[in-house]
Amino acid sequence: MTAMLTPEQIDHFMGEAIMEAHKAEALGEVPIGAVVVVDGQIIARGFNLRERLEDPSQHAEYQAIVEASRVLHSWRLPDAQVFVTLEPCIMCAGLIQQTRITDVYYGAEDPKAGGVHSMYHLLEDERLNHQVQVHQGVRAAETSEMLTNFFRKIRAQQKAAKRARKAIKHEQ
Amino acid sequence: MTAMLTPEQIDHFMGEAIMEAHKAEALGEVPIGAVVVVDGQIIARGFNLRERLEDPSQHAEYQAIVEASRVLHSWRLPDAQVFVTLEPCIMCAGLIQQTRITDVYYGAEDPKAGGVHSMYHLLEDERLNHQVQVHQGVRAAETSEMLTNFFRKIRAQQKAAKRARKAIKHEQ
Repeated sequence: MTAMLTPEQIDHFMGEAIMEAHKAEALGEVPIGAVVVVDGQIIARGFNLRERLEDPSQHAEYQAIVEASRVLHSWRLPDAQVFVTLEPCIMCAGLIQQTRITDVYYGAEDPKAGGVHSMYHLLEDERLNHQVQVHQGVRAAETSEMLTNFFRKIRAQQKAAKRARKAIKHEQ
Repeated sequence: MTAMLTPEQIDHFMGEAIMEAHKAEALGEVPIGAVVVVDGQIIARGFNLRERLEDPSQHAEYQAIVEASRVLHSWRLPDAQVFVTLEPCIMCAGLIQQTRITDVYYGAEDPKAGGVHSMYHLLEDERLNHQVQVHQGVRAAETSEMLTNFFRKIRAQQKAAKRARKAIKHEQ
Protein backbone atom coordinates (compact mmCIF):
# COMPACT_ATOMS: atom_id res chain seq x y z
CA MET A 1 0.00 0.00 0.00
CA THR A 2 1.29 3.44 -0.90
CA ALA A 3 1.78 5.85 2.03
CA MET A 4 -0.28 9.06 1.94
CA LEU A 5 1.64 12.14 0.91
CA THR A 6 1.68 15.16 3.22
CA PRO A 7 0.53 18.58 1.94
CA GLU A 8 4.19 19.66 2.10
CA GLN A 9 5.26 16.74 -0.09
CA ILE A 10 2.47 17.46 -2.57
CA ASP A 11 3.53 21.10 -2.75
CA HIS A 12 7.17 20.12 -3.15
CA PHE A 13 6.60 17.58 -5.93
CA MET A 14 4.43 20.03 -7.88
CA GLY A 15 7.29 22.52 -7.50
CA GLU A 16 9.57 19.98 -9.15
CA ALA A 17 7.05 19.53 -11.99
CA ILE A 18 7.00 23.32 -12.41
CA MET A 19 10.81 23.27 -12.70
CA GLU A 20 10.47 20.72 -15.49
CA ALA A 21 7.92 22.97 -17.22
CA HIS A 22 10.47 25.80 -17.25
CA LYS A 23 12.86 23.53 -19.17
CA ALA A 24 10.21 23.13 -21.89
CA GLU A 25 9.68 26.90 -21.97
CA ALA A 26 13.41 27.51 -22.38
CA LEU A 27 13.21 25.47 -25.60
CA GLY A 28 10.16 27.36 -26.89
CA GLU A 29 7.76 24.52 -26.07
CA VAL A 30 4.48 24.97 -24.20
CA PRO A 31 5.61 24.92 -20.52
CA ILE A 32 4.30 21.66 -19.08
CA GLY A 33 6.29 19.51 -16.66
CA ALA A 34 5.81 16.29 -14.71
CA VAL A 35 7.45 13.99 -12.18
CA VAL A 36 6.68 10.41 -11.09
CA VAL A 37 6.99 9.61 -7.38
CA VAL A 38 7.39 6.21 -5.69
CA ASP A 39 7.79 5.85 -1.91
CA GLY A 40 8.12 9.60 -1.50
CA GLN A 41 10.99 9.86 -4.02
CA ILE A 42 11.05 11.23 -7.56
CA ILE A 43 12.02 8.36 -9.88
CA ALA A 44 11.38 10.05 -13.24
CA ARG A 45 10.92 13.48 -14.79
CA GLY A 46 9.61 14.83 -18.06
CA PHE A 47 8.73 18.00 -19.92
CA ASN A 48 6.80 18.74 -23.07
CA LEU A 49 8.93 18.24 -26.22
CA ARG A 50 6.29 17.67 -28.84
CA GLU A 51 7.52 20.24 -31.37
CA ARG A 52 11.24 19.64 -30.94
CA LEU A 53 11.00 15.85 -31.15
CA GLU A 54 8.30 16.02 -33.88
CA ASP A 55 6.54 13.31 -31.90
CA PRO A 56 2.86 13.63 -30.92
CA SER A 57 3.32 11.51 -27.80
CA GLN A 58 6.02 13.57 -26.10
CA HIS A 59 3.87 15.21 -23.45
CA ALA A 60 5.49 15.87 -20.05
CA GLU A 61 3.70 13.16 -18.07
CA TYR A 62 4.06 10.71 -20.95
CA GLN A 63 7.84 11.15 -20.86
CA ALA A 64 7.99 10.84 -17.09
CA ILE A 65 5.84 7.67 -17.07
CA VAL A 66 7.80 5.94 -19.83
CA GLU A 67 11.03 6.86 -18.00
CA ALA A 68 9.57 5.43 -14.76
CA SER A 69 8.77 2.17 -16.58
CA ARG A 70 12.37 2.01 -17.72
CA VAL A 71 13.63 2.60 -14.16
CA LEU A 72 11.34 -0.06 -12.68
CA HIS A 73 11.61 -2.51 -15.62
CA SER A 74 7.86 -2.82 -15.86
CA TRP A 75 5.01 -1.19 -17.74
CA ARG A 76 2.94 -1.53 -14.57
CA LEU A 77 3.52 1.19 -11.95
CA PRO A 78 1.09 0.21 -9.17
CA ASP A 79 2.87 2.22 -6.44
CA ALA A 80 3.45 5.42 -8.35
CA GLN A 81 1.95 8.90 -8.24
CA VAL A 82 2.26 11.39 -11.06
CA PHE A 83 2.48 15.18 -10.67
CA VAL A 84 1.83 17.29 -13.76
CA THR A 85 1.38 21.04 -14.16
CA LEU A 86 -1.54 20.76 -16.63
CA GLU A 87 -4.55 18.43 -16.56
CA PRO A 88 -3.69 15.28 -18.56
CA CYS A 89 -5.19 14.93 -22.05
CA ILE A 90 -7.12 11.86 -23.24
CA MET A 91 -3.95 10.12 -24.46
CA CYS A 92 -2.09 10.62 -21.19
CA ALA A 93 -5.16 9.68 -19.15
CA GLY A 94 -5.26 6.39 -21.07
CA LEU A 95 -1.57 5.80 -20.41
CA ILE A 96 -1.95 6.60 -16.69
CA GLN A 97 -4.94 4.27 -16.36
CA GLN A 98 -3.11 1.37 -18.01
CA THR A 99 0.00 1.69 -15.84
CA ARG A 100 -2.10 1.32 -12.63
CA ILE A 101 -0.67 4.55 -11.18
CA THR A 102 -2.52 5.30 -7.90
CA ASP A 103 -2.84 9.11 -7.94
CA VAL A 104 -2.62 12.03 -10.33
CA TYR A 105 -1.98 15.53 -8.95
CA TYR A 106 -2.34 18.37 -11.44
CA GLY A 107 -2.27 22.15 -11.45
CA ALA A 108 -4.04 24.01 -14.26
CA GLU A 109 -7.32 22.87 -15.82
CA ASP A 110 -7.46 22.15 -19.56
CA PRO A 111 -11.05 23.00 -20.54
CA LYS A 112 -10.47 22.23 -24.26
CA ALA A 113 -8.71 18.86 -23.99
CA GLY A 114 -8.62 17.68 -20.36
CA GLY A 115 -9.35 13.98 -20.00
CA VAL A 116 -9.57 13.55 -16.25
CA HIS A 117 -11.89 16.34 -15.13
CA SER A 118 -12.73 19.04 -17.70
CA MET A 119 -14.08 16.99 -20.63
CA TYR A 120 -13.96 13.39 -19.43
CA HIS A 121 -13.47 11.59 -16.11
CA LEU A 122 -11.51 8.77 -17.72
CA LEU A 123 -9.60 7.84 -14.57
CA GLU A 124 -12.71 7.25 -12.47
CA ASP A 125 -14.54 4.99 -14.96
CA GLU A 126 -15.60 1.92 -12.99
CA ARG A 127 -16.03 -0.13 -16.15
CA LEU A 128 -12.25 -0.07 -16.63
CA ASN A 129 -9.94 -2.50 -14.80
CA HIS A 130 -8.32 0.19 -12.63
CA GLN A 131 -9.27 3.60 -11.24
CA VAL A 132 -6.92 6.45 -10.39
CA GLN A 133 -7.44 9.09 -7.69
CA VAL A 134 -7.45 12.56 -9.25
CA HIS A 135 -6.34 15.65 -7.27
CA GLN A 136 -6.88 18.87 -9.18
CA GLY A 137 -5.79 22.44 -8.51
CA VAL A 138 -2.39 21.81 -6.88
CA ARG A 139 -0.55 25.17 -7.05
CA ALA A 140 -3.24 26.08 -9.56
CA ALA A 141 -2.53 29.82 -9.76
CA GLU A 142 1.18 29.34 -10.53
CA THR A 143 0.70 26.57 -13.07
CA SER A 144 -2.09 28.46 -14.86
CA GLU A 145 -0.17 31.74 -14.95
CA MET A 146 2.86 30.01 -16.43
CA LEU A 147 0.72 28.92 -19.40
CA THR A 148 -1.15 32.23 -19.72
CA ASN A 149 2.12 34.17 -19.74
CA PHE A 150 3.64 31.82 -22.32
CA PHE A 151 0.73 32.23 -24.75
CA ARG A 152 0.62 36.00 -24.15
CA LYS A 153 4.32 36.20 -25.08
CA ILE A 154 3.77 34.09 -28.20
CA ARG A 155 0.89 36.32 -29.34
CA ALA A 156 2.99 39.46 -28.73
CA GLN A 157 5.83 37.97 -30.78
CA GLN A 158 3.43 37.09 -33.61
CA LYS A 159 2.02 40.64 -33.61
CA ALA A 160 5.52 42.16 -33.66
CA ALA A 161 6.50 39.90 -36.57
CA LYS A 162 3.35 40.93 -38.47
CA ARG A 163 4.09 44.63 -37.89
CA ALA A 164 7.67 44.12 -39.07
CA ARG A 165 6.47 42.38 -42.25
CA LYS A 166 4.02 45.22 -42.94
CA ALA A 167 6.75 47.87 -42.41
CA ILE A 168 9.08 46.07 -44.84
CA LYS A 169 6.28 45.83 -47.44
CA HIS A 170 5.56 49.54 -47.04
CA GLU A 171 9.22 50.49 -47.58
CA GLN A 172 9.54 48.38 -50.73
CA MET B 1 -7.89 16.21 -49.61
CA THR B 2 -7.22 12.53 -49.08
CA ALA B 3 -8.47 10.21 -51.82
CA MET B 4 -11.05 7.60 -50.81
CA LEU B 5 -9.65 4.11 -50.45
CA THR B 6 -11.22 1.28 -52.45
CA PRO B 7 -12.58 -1.82 -50.66
CA GLU B 8 -9.64 -3.74 -52.16
CA GLN B 9 -7.15 -1.28 -50.67
CA ILE B 10 -8.86 -1.42 -47.27
CA ASP B 11 -8.73 -5.22 -47.35
CA HIS B 12 -5.07 -5.15 -48.41
CA PHE B 13 -3.94 -2.69 -45.74
CA MET B 14 -5.71 -4.63 -43.00
CA GLY B 15 -3.91 -7.71 -44.32
CA GLU B 16 -0.62 -5.87 -43.78
CA ALA B 17 -1.69 -4.95 -40.24
CA ILE B 18 -2.49 -8.65 -39.65
CA MET B 19 1.03 -9.52 -40.83
CA GLU B 20 2.40 -7.10 -38.23
CA ALA B 21 0.25 -8.77 -35.56
CA HIS B 22 1.87 -12.12 -36.37
CA LYS B 23 5.27 -10.58 -35.60
CA ALA B 24 4.03 -9.69 -32.11
CA GLU B 25 2.70 -13.22 -31.66
CA ALA B 26 6.03 -14.74 -32.66
CA LEU B 27 7.57 -12.86 -29.72
CA GLY B 28 4.89 -14.02 -27.27
CA GLU B 29 3.10 -10.65 -27.25
CA VAL B 30 -0.65 -10.23 -27.71
CA PRO B 31 -1.03 -10.26 -31.53
CA ILE B 32 -1.98 -6.73 -32.53
CA GLY B 33 -0.60 -4.99 -35.62
CA ALA B 34 -1.00 -1.66 -37.39
CA VAL B 35 0.04 0.30 -40.46
CA VAL B 36 -0.19 3.99 -41.34
CA VAL B 37 -1.13 4.89 -44.92
CA VAL B 38 -0.61 8.17 -46.79
CA ASP B 39 -1.59 8.60 -50.47
CA GLY B 40 -2.35 4.89 -50.79
CA GLN B 41 1.10 3.85 -49.54
CA ILE B 42 2.19 2.34 -46.22
CA ILE B 43 4.61 4.78 -44.59
CA ALA B 44 4.92 3.14 -41.16
CA ARG B 45 4.26 -0.15 -39.38
CA GLY B 46 4.02 -1.32 -35.80
CA PHE B 47 3.18 -4.27 -33.60
CA ASN B 48 2.48 -4.68 -29.92
CA LEU B 49 5.69 -4.84 -27.85
CA ARG B 50 4.47 -3.78 -24.44
CA GLU B 51 5.92 -6.70 -22.45
CA ARG B 52 9.22 -6.99 -24.29
CA LEU B 53 9.98 -3.26 -24.18
CA GLU B 54 8.56 -2.90 -20.64
CA ASP B 55 6.89 0.24 -21.93
CA PRO B 56 3.15 0.84 -21.43
CA SER B 57 2.89 2.94 -24.58
CA GLN B 58 4.16 0.38 -27.07
CA HIS B 59 0.84 -0.56 -28.64
CA ALA B 60 0.85 -1.43 -32.35
CA GLU B 61 -0.86 1.72 -33.63
CA TYR B 62 1.13 3.87 -31.22
CA GLN B 63 4.37 2.55 -32.72
CA ALA B 64 3.15 3.00 -36.28
CA ILE B 65 1.98 6.58 -35.64
CA VAL B 66 5.20 7.66 -33.91
CA GLU B 67 7.16 6.09 -36.77
CA ALA B 68 4.99 7.97 -39.30
CA SER B 69 5.73 11.23 -37.45
CA ARG B 70 9.43 10.47 -37.78
CA VAL B 71 9.07 9.77 -41.50
CA LEU B 72 7.09 12.98 -42.14
CA HIS B 73 9.04 15.15 -39.65
CA SER B 74 5.85 16.32 -38.02
CA TRP B 75 3.62 15.31 -35.12
CA ARG B 76 0.65 16.32 -37.28
CA LEU B 77 -0.48 13.68 -39.80
CA PRO B 78 -3.47 15.32 -41.49
CA ASP B 79 -3.40 13.09 -44.59
CA ALA B 80 -2.93 9.75 -42.89
CA GLN B 81 -5.14 6.75 -42.25
CA VAL B 82 -4.39 4.10 -39.66
CA PHE B 83 -5.25 0.41 -39.91
CA VAL B 84 -5.16 -1.64 -36.72
CA THR B 85 -6.29 -5.19 -36.01
CA LEU B 86 -7.91 -4.33 -32.63
CA GLU B 87 -10.07 -1.35 -31.66
CA PRO B 88 -7.80 1.41 -30.29
CA CYS B 89 -7.72 1.94 -26.51
CA ILE B 90 -8.27 5.32 -24.83
CA MET B 91 -4.56 6.20 -24.98
CA CYS B 92 -4.24 5.41 -28.68
CA ALA B 93 -7.53 7.16 -29.46
CA GLY B 94 -6.11 10.29 -27.81
CA LEU B 95 -2.93 10.00 -29.84
CA ILE B 96 -4.86 9.50 -33.09
CA GLN B 97 -7.10 12.50 -32.37
CA GLN B 98 -4.15 14.79 -31.68
CA THR B 99 -2.27 13.82 -34.84
CA ARG B 100 -5.27 14.84 -37.03
CA ILE B 101 -5.33 11.44 -38.76
CA THR B 102 -8.40 11.31 -41.05
CA ASP B 103 -9.59 7.68 -40.71
CA VAL B 104 -9.18 4.69 -38.45
CA TYR B 105 -9.97 1.21 -39.79
CA TYR B 106 -10.01 -1.58 -37.23
CA GLY B 107 -10.84 -5.27 -37.06
CA ALA B 108 -11.82 -6.78 -33.71
CA GLU B 109 -13.88 -4.97 -31.08
CA ASP B 110 -12.42 -4.43 -27.60
CA PRO B 111 -15.46 -4.44 -25.29
CA LYS B 112 -13.36 -4.00 -22.13
CA ALA B 113 -11.07 -1.14 -23.19
CA GLY B 114 -12.08 0.16 -26.64
CA GLY B 115 -12.00 3.94 -26.86
CA VAL B 116 -13.50 4.59 -30.28
CA HIS B 117 -16.68 2.49 -30.30
CA SER B 118 -17.11 -0.04 -27.48
CA MET B 119 -16.71 2.13 -24.36
CA TYR B 120 -16.20 5.64 -25.69
CA HIS B 121 -16.57 7.43 -29.02
CA LEU B 122 -13.55 9.63 -28.42
CA LEU B 123 -12.82 10.23 -32.10
CA GLU B 124 -16.26 11.63 -32.87
CA ASP B 125 -16.40 14.14 -29.98
CA GLU B 126 -17.36 17.47 -31.56
CA ARG B 127 -16.05 19.43 -28.55
CA LEU B 128 -12.50 18.42 -29.55
CA ASN B 129 -10.54 20.31 -32.24
CA HIS B 130 -10.57 17.42 -34.73
CA GLN B 131 -12.78 14.43 -35.50
CA VAL B 132 -11.67 11.14 -37.04
CA GLN B 133 -13.78 8.82 -39.20
CA VAL B 134 -14.03 5.38 -37.59
CA HIS B 135 -14.54 2.22 -39.69
CA GLN B 136 -15.05 -0.88 -37.57
CA GLY B 137 -15.18 -4.57 -38.43
CA VAL B 138 -12.61 -4.68 -41.27
CA ARG B 139 -11.69 -8.39 -41.65
CA ALA B 140 -13.37 -8.73 -38.27
CA ALA B 141 -13.55 -12.55 -38.16
CA GLU B 142 -9.84 -13.02 -38.88
CA THR B 143 -8.64 -10.33 -36.48
CA SER B 144 -10.90 -11.59 -33.68
CA GLU B 145 -9.94 -15.24 -34.17
CA MET B 146 -6.26 -14.35 -34.04
CA LEU B 147 -6.77 -12.93 -30.54
CA THR B 148 -9.11 -15.72 -29.37
CA ASN B 149 -6.63 -18.38 -30.50
CA PHE B 150 -3.76 -16.59 -28.80
CA PHE B 151 -5.51 -16.41 -25.44
CA ARG B 152 -6.73 -20.03 -25.77
CA LYS B 153 -3.13 -21.14 -26.32
CA ILE B 154 -1.92 -19.11 -23.32
CA ARG B 155 -4.58 -20.67 -21.08
CA ALA B 156 -3.68 -24.18 -22.29
CA GLN B 157 0.00 -23.51 -21.56
CA GLN B 158 -0.85 -22.25 -18.08
CA LYS B 159 -2.95 -25.36 -17.39
CA ALA B 160 -0.17 -27.65 -18.61
CA ALA B 161 2.36 -25.86 -16.40
CA LYS B 162 0.06 -26.23 -13.40
CA ARG B 163 -0.37 -29.95 -14.09
CA ALA B 164 3.39 -30.36 -14.40
CA ARG B 165 3.97 -28.59 -11.09
CA LYS B 166 1.39 -30.85 -9.39
CA ALA B 167 2.97 -33.98 -10.84
CA ILE B 168 6.42 -32.93 -9.59
CA LYS B 169 5.02 -32.22 -6.11
CA HIS B 170 3.35 -35.65 -6.07
CA GLU B 171 6.60 -37.42 -6.95
CA GLN B 172 8.59 -35.65 -4.24
